[in-house]
Amino acid sequence: MISWGKPHQGDLVITSTKPDFDALLAQAHALANRASSVILPRFRAGVGIAHKGGSDFDPVTEADKEAERVMRALINERFPDHGIIGEEFGSENEDAEYCWVLDPIDGTRAFIMGQPLWGVLIGLAKDGAPYVGMMEQPFLGERFWAADGKAIYRRGETEKLMRTRACADLADALLGATGPYMFEEWELARFDELGANVRLKRYGGDCYNYCLLAMGEVDLVVEASLNIYDILPLIPIVEAAGGVVTTWEGGDPAQGGRIIAAGDPALHEKALRYLNP
Amino acid sequence: MISWGKPHQGDLVITSTKPDFDALLAQAHALANRASSVILPRFRAGVGIAHKGGSDFDPVTEADKEAERVMRALINERFPDHGIIGEEFGSENEDAEYCWVLDPIDGTRAFIMGQPLWGVLIGLAKDGAPYVGMMEQPFLGERFWAADGKAIYRRGETEKLMRTRACADLADALLGATGPYMFEEWELARFDELGANVRLKRYGGDCYNYCLLAMGEVDLVVEASLNIYDILPLIPIVEAAGGVVTTWEGGDPAQGGRIIAAGDPALHEKALRYLNP
Repeated sequence: MISWGKPHQGDLVITSTKPDFDALLAQAHALANRASSVILPRFRAGVGIAHKGGSDFDPVTEADKEAERVMRALINERFPDHGIIGEEFGSENEDAEYCWVLDPIDGTRAFIMGQPLWGVLIGLAKDGAPYVGMMEQPFLGERFWAADGKAIYRRGETEKLMRTRACADLADALLGATGPYMFEEWELARFDELGANVRLKRYGGDCYNYCLLAMGEVDLVVEASLNIYDILPLIPIVEAAGGVVTTWEGGDPAQGGRIIAAGDPALHEKALRYLNP
Repeated sequence: MISWGKPHQGDLVITSTKPDFDALLAQAHALANRASSVILPRFRAGVGIAHKGGSDFDPVTEADKEAERVMRALINERFPDHGIIGEEFGSENEDAEYCWVLDPIDGTRAFIMGQPLWGVLIGLAKDGAPYVGMMEQPFLGERFWAADGKAIYRRGETEKLMRTRACADLADALLGATGPYMFEEWELARFDELGANVRLKRYGGDCYNYCLLAMGEVDLVVEASLNIYDILPLIPIVEAAGGVVTTWEGGDPAQGGRIIAAGDPALHEKALRYLNP
């Protein structure tokens, strides 16, 4: 078993009301540690699955809720003037200068099937723009984040800088998406048209695909129906690694919706022609 | 990084021509160790990808070939009278009483995208029937195998017995499949009909899904276009855990084709009605 050390490693007591980036990043690490320590014992442990309202199946685990609870508590304790937008418990003070954007388990479908491709997403928006981004996969012992314009990958004791790879042609591109169910019919038609022109298309992955893109393993991630907490925490990571993230229309991706991430800006431009013809 | 210890841990020198089960299982562990030590350094390392012949894209990595090479060498060295069927280098002496069935990287699509849901599949048929089965995921440090009617899971220092879970109703079932591309049109229609009646359907996973089924995390795996080396090594694991594996027609699954695995025999029967109406 890989260990990140003590669950609360990285915790710092910070009281400044205008904390600098390092303190905010330290808070993100602390949130990731807390969330992991809550989630990991519940992975593959036959956790009770509650259904959200609505007709579509949308699993929410106890782990999901409990992890968001401990993260919110830690934010309220240290940065009481910050806002929070979370998947499970909605928004509070979301117009604050700093607003945390949390998805405790992105990829709940993978989680309940025991596949370790889900992740804890922790983002911070400053004046509405992505500022801090982190993804944590506790079962694999992997953490991905951005700082100082660098994208960083850590597993166990090993840290590496991440860079997207050059891939200017669709014919060479590896394309990932979580699953066909996320698309409307017309969206799926465009996705499939794009998919027919790439080297390899693969379903499954959720937030993990964006991190693989930052690592230079995947060239394109194209999705739809994303919420702010599904994408905002990933934007700093992809951008710091050299990638591009926009909506299918080429606009600001920070609020979610139809999203395309590309490792190579030239590839992004070519893929947009299929998604927004 | 998780380590299985020395790469050749578990190696035994065996010269009997009628070795007993334990010696064969020890050989499977040795093969898994060898294969892992060859494959793992090439995972996420920008390995060169060669294309197989044919119009469909079917990635084969150097890791795939090299791993099969080292496994074949170890079989030829220790059990020269055994047959071998492998994904990369075909069959030799396949009518022998004992025949090894090898897929060095099952899930090459996942592999080249950097997703750790691929696995090394090592099977042994005795007189044509599955006898030894093993799946190894070296990046996760996980190994799944069957022995003495038990299904065993190991990660790091921890070993657990695996059992499928009770799930008699389709409405409660989690269904996995590698991807829609593996199905003919009529097969996909039946799969989708089944999928519309389960709690959750998810693409992605390859051999990993069968192991999750053995662990009691997934209830159904339904696939098509499988080769003998894609399924034979998994059959002893699923069966020892209490599951059922057959073709869609309810027949012997050992040669591949259209395959269904179910954790609960009652669920298997209900799912077959959709696949073979």
